[in-house]
Amino acid sequence: MPNAATKPLFKIATELGVGFCLGYAEISFEGNVKHRYNTSILVDRAGKIAGKYRKVHVPGHREHEPERPFQHLEKRYFETGNLGFPVYQVDDVAVGMFICNDRRWPETWRVMGIRGAQLICGGFNTPTHSPPVPQHDHLTSFHHLLSMQAGAYQNGVWAAAAAKAGMEEGSMLLGYSCIVAPTGEIVALSSTVGDEVITAVCDLDRSSELRDHIFNFKMHRQPQHYGLIAQM
Amino acid sequence: MPNAATKPLFKIATELGVGFCLGYAEISFEGNVKHRYNTSILVDRAGKIAGKYRKVHVPGHREHEPERPFQHLEKRYFETGNLGFPVYQVDDVAVGMFICNDRRWPETWRVMGIRGAQLICGGFNTPTHSPPVPQHDHLTSFHHLLSMQAGAYQNGVWAAAAAKAGMEEGSMLLGYSCIVAPTGEIVALSSTVGDEVITAVCDLDRSSELRDHIFNFKMHRQPQHYGLIAQM
Repeated sequence: MPNAATKPLFKIATELGVGFCLGYAEISFEGNVKHRYNTSILVDRAGKIAGKYRKVHVPGHREHEPERPFQHLEKRYFETGNLGFPVYQVDDVAVGMFICNDRRWPETWRVMGIRGAQLICGGFNTPTHSPPVPQHDHLTSFHHLLSMQAGAYQNGVWAAAAAKAGMEEGSMLLGYSCIVAPTGEIVALSSTVGDEVITAVCDLDRSSELRDHIFNFKMHRQPQHYGLIAQM
Repeated sequence: MPNAATKPLFKIATELGVGFCLGYAEISFEGNVKHRYNTSILVDRAGKIAGKYRKVHVPGHREHEPERPFQHLEKRYFETGNLGFPVYQVDDVAVGMFICNDRRWPETWRVMGIRGAQLICGGFNTPTHSPPVPQHDHLTSFHHLLSMQAGAYQNGVWAAAAAKAGMEEGSMLLGYSCIVAPTGEIVALSSTVGDEVITAVCDLDRSSELRDHIFNFKMHRQPQHYGLIAQM
């Protein structure tokens, strides 16, 4: 990165002084071994790659399941990320990333919250139909926003999620790109499954409304009782 | 327990075949040392105490803060619970407990989720005014429900919370007692700050809609990346 396809993006973002987060399918050689990761990068205002994340919570299944109208073979094509949940200083902001399904897991948010993230952002491709549990289809947007709002609130961080929305190969993907304040309040939300830009002014100092009080980690966390969470 | 004050409760619940969860201030002697815990117990349909929990996330402050209109000295009067987050079999249901502020911490839910809880319940006393952060007063019910719904959804458990609601010594306490399905949907909610009974039929098998798929812990959790959460 940047490759031929993304160079124009880097170029115009740099000209405009806009940082961004970009997801892509990564091939990585570690020694002589080829690895495939579901990856995203942070690019700062100057167009420099400032951080990389590889998706930890790869969902789906490994083998073809003929009863499904469409496959969810993410576990077949991607390995579990091997970078943990890093937080990077990007243009003076401590930024962490999630990719799609990661946002549903409180561990994603907590590890980056402990590392002092001020903004946690990422992209998602979320089908509105779940073949194994179609009785939850109407809850797709609720579960997305619930996860984003809880993650932001429980860690006192700003959160932003960008949808790859709309119809793709017969599968409708959720919109609801959003920006969430450290209070858990949604401050910007897309309203279509087409191309949109949503924006918010994010006062990073607002994290302290949570992190100095109800979620003062130093005063109130009790890791001696959390061992089971990290147990292999 | 039961003591003179609670014996009538045990008696009538046993007669009716109703189990319950009861919170109280506990004095416990460990060796010759006197300890004070914020405690709750589970009582089964036969009136037998089937489980005990001592609040882990004790909020508030240790010293008198004269600028506050009312004090929140829970950290002065109670020690951190020393039982972790146990899950008990009560009348054939795997039940865990939280107490008040515990419900805001995803670790509370996750430890009991990993232990196979089917129902997580508890009580709360939540003032609608927070002296250090009054700009969040209007979010009190939102933060309560967000925490309950996220905890239930992210662990695929039934959740129930009972408010000590209404005015107490000049402090208004939140209502919004609720029962939440493993989908995160609120299926019962109180509507006043007075005495109320809310009920729901809880199909425990519904946990599998989450735990066999999106939150299949065995397939999808990656504890090798969660170490920081349990680090002292």
